[in-house]
Amino acid sequence: MADTVRLAVIPGDGIGQEVTAEALKVLSAVLEGSGTTVATTEYDLGARLYHRTGETLPDSVLEEVRGHDAILLGAVGDPGVPSGVLERGLLLKLRFALDHHVNLRPSKLFPGVATPLADPGDIDFVVVREGTEGPYVGNGGALRVGTPHEIATEVSVNTAFGVERVVRDAFARAAARPRKKLTLVHKHNVLVHAGHLWRRTVEAVGAQFPDVAVDYLHVDAATIFLVTDPARFDVVVTDNLFGDILTDLAAAVTGGIGLAASGNVNPDRTTPSMFEPVHGSAPDIAGKQLADPTAAVLSVALLLEHLGHTGAAARVDAAVTADLARRAAGEAGRRTTAEVGDALAAAVS
Amino acid sequence: MADTVRLAVIPGDGIGQEVTAEALKVLSAVLEGSGTTVATTEYDLGARLYHRTGETLPDSVLEEVRGHDAILLGAVGDPGVPSGVLERGLLLKLRFALDHHVNLRPSKLFPGVATPLADPGDIDFVVVREGTEGPYVGNGGALRVGTPHEIATEVSVNTAFGVERVVRDAFARAAARPRKKLTLVHKHNVLVHAGHLWRRTVEAVGAQFPDVAVDYLHVDAATIFLVTDPARFDVVVTDNLFGDILTDLAAAVTGGIGLAASGNVNPDRTTPSMFEPVHGSAPDIAGKQLADPTAAVLSVALLLEHLGHTGAAARVDAAVTADLARRAAGEAGRRTTAEVGDALAAAVS
Ligand SMILES: CC(C)[C@H](C(=O)O)[C@@H](O)C(=O)O
Ligand SMILES: CC(C)[C@H](C(=O)O)[C@@H](O)C(=O)O
Repeated sequence: MADTVRLAVIPGDGIGQEVTAEALKVLSAVLEGSGTTVATTEYDLGARLYHRTGETLPDSVLEEVRGHDAILLGAVGDPGVPSGVLERGLLLKLRFALDHHVNLRPSKLFPGVATPLADPGDIDFVVVREGTEGPYVGNGGALRVGTPHEIATEVSVNTAFGVERVVRDAFARAAARPRKKLTLVHKHNVLVHAGHLWRRTVEAVGAQFPDVAVDYLHVDAATIFLVTDPARFDVVVTDNLFGDILTDLAAAVTGGIGLAASGNVNPDRTTPSMFEPVHGSAPDIAGKQLADPTAAVLSVALLLEHLGHTGAAARVDAAVTADLARRAAGEAGRRTTAEVGDALAAAVS
Repeated sequence: MADTVRLAVIPGDGIGQEVTAEALKVLSAVLEGSGTTVATTEYDLGARLYHRTGETLPDSVLEEVRGHDAILLGAVGDPGVPSGVLERGLLLKLRFALDHHVNLRPSKLFPGVATPLADPGDIDFVVVREGTEGPYVGNGGALRVGTPHEIATEVSVNTAFGVERVVRDAFARAAARPRKKLTLVHKHNVLVHAGHLWRRTVEAVGAQFPDVAVDYLHVDAATIFLVTDPARFDVVVTDNLFGDILTDLAAAVTGGIGLAASGNVNPDRTTPSMFEPVHGSAPDIAGKQLADPTAAVLSVALLLEHLGHTGAAARVDAAVTADLARRAAGEAGRRTTAEVGDALAAAVS
C-alpha cells in the first residue's frame, strides 16, 4: 500500500465533471489523517478533446495514465459525438489496453431505496463480468456495405486463458462472501463453443473451491430471476456482453444506474485499475448541480477496496448507506450535487 | 384461406403434451361451424425419440412437416438430454430450415395478472425478433479444446437481406397498431458492423413508413426500460440473441413465461410457420395436470391470426383475457390443465 496514491482522474463530460469533484472530496476526507495521501493528475479526455482535436486517447496520454496506481473516471460523451467513437476510442480502449479483465459490478439494494419491484427481497450480489474478450474484441467486419448484398459479422473471441482468470477471480470472491455461491450465466445451448469453454472452466476451477456452491443459468432465464428473485444471486460470473446487459438490469432493480458503481480491475496490479459510475454524462442535467454523485462515491469505495484500504472503503459504504436512509426518511431535503458530496465527506471524516 | 388447415403437431415432452392437448381443444372449438376444419398430423419428436434412436429431426420427418400449413409445438426436453441437442437439433433446425425469420413475441399484461413490478403501467407490445441470423447461425468453432491454449469463437452473421425483411415486417406491424411506434434494440456502439447494418436498414425502410415513429435503445438500456417503463414499447425489432434475452424479461414482467406465446413465422407462407409457448417442458410438474395451458392457447391465437382467421384469433384472446380476470377475482378456483382448456374451449364456442 503506497503512502501516496497516484490517481489519474478523467472527469469527462456533462455530469461526469460534477460527480467526480464530489468523489474526490470524499476520497480526501476518508483518507485524511491516515498517512495516505492522494496525488491526482487530471486528464481532459472525452467529447471536448474529441471535438477540438479528433483524438480520443492519444498514445502519450495512455502511457502517462499507465504510470498511476488507479484511475477515477466520471462519464464521457455528448450528443455531438458519433455513437461508438468514445466508447471504443476511450472507454473500451482503456479497458483493453490496461487489461481490465475483471469488470466488477456490485448490486445492492440499500435500505430505503426505491425499486421498480413490488417485492425485491434482500438484494446483494456482485457481477464479475469478463472485460477483455467476448463480442467486445472488435473482431468483426462488413462486406458490400450499403448494397443489398451486405454482410456484417461480429466475432466473439473466448480463450481458456481469459475465461480461466476471470472465473478464478469470481470463485475467490464467492469464497470470501458469507453465502459462497457462484452462478455462471451464458447461453451454452446455442453458443456451444464459447459456452462449453465457460462451462468446463467453471467446473475445473470450481473443483479447487469445494466450499462454493455453483449453479448455471442461461442468460435469458437470468433476466427472469433478476426481476422475480434477485436475492437468489451472490456472485455471478459471465461474459462481456451478457455482463453488460445483466448489470444494467441489476442496476435498474436496485434503484437505477444513478447508484451503480463499477470497477474495471486488473487484479494483477501491473496496470492501474479504473473505477467509474455506470451512468452516462447526462447532458440534459449537466452543469446544474442536479446529478447524484452517489455512484461516483461508491466507485471510490471500490477503488479503496482494490488498493487495500478496506477500512476506508467500508466507511464510504456506511456513509452512503446512512445518507440513502436519511433520504428515504425524508430527512435529507433537496440538495445540490456538492451538498450531497459535502454530507458524505463529513460522514467519513 | 384453406378449408382444411393441415396442422403438424409436435407435443414434445413433459407438460408439452398436456398443454398441446388443450390448445388443440380450443382450436377445434373456435373453428367449429366456421367451415374450416383442422387436420392434424402428430409427430413424436423430442427427448423420447432422441433417447430411443439418437435422432432429433430425421430428414424424412422434416420433409413431411414441410407439407403442412402450420406447426403447433408444445415443449421439448428432459434432464437426460445434453444441453443444446434438442435446441439445435430440433427447435433451431425447424426455425432455420423453414426460414422462420420473424420470431414474433407479444407481451401484454392482461388485467388482473400478477407482475413483479410495483407500477407496471399498461404493457402491450410485441417483439419482432430476427430468427435466422445473428449469433444463432452456428458459425463458431474451437481450437485446442481442453488445453490452456483453447480458443472458442462464435460468429454473429447479419445480412442486408435478412435484416431488411424482418425490419420491414416490424414496420408493417407498427403501422397497423394504434401507437405506430418502432424501437430498434441493438448495441451499435460496440457491435459496430452488425449494429450499423441494422441502423441503416431501419432508417431506409422507415422512410417508407413516415407514420411510424422510430427510436433506438442499446440492449442494456432496453432492459432498464423493461422494468422501469415497459409501457413505452409498442413494436420492438431486434436481432436473434437480443430478442431471446428481451422476450424472456418481457414475459417475466407480464406475468411469467407461463403466459407467453410465440410464433416462428415465415410471412411469405412458402413454408409452415410454427407456434409455441415460450415455456419449457417442466419435467418436475409433468403428467400431473398442473400446467397452465394458457401460453399454448395464446399460441393458437397467433396461429389463427397468421392463417388469416382474425375473428377466431380475437375470440381466443378474449377468452383468455376473461379467464385471467376470473382467476384474479378469485372466481376460478384450482383447476387441472384440462379444466382450464375446457373452460377456454367453452368460451370460444
Ligand atoms: C459505453 C459502453 C461501451 C459500455 C459497455 O458496453 O461496456 C457501458 O454500457 C458499460 O456497461 O460500461
Ligand atoms: C431453447 C432455445 C434454443 C430458445 C432460443 O434461444 O431461442 C429459447 O430460449 C427461446 O427463446 O425460444
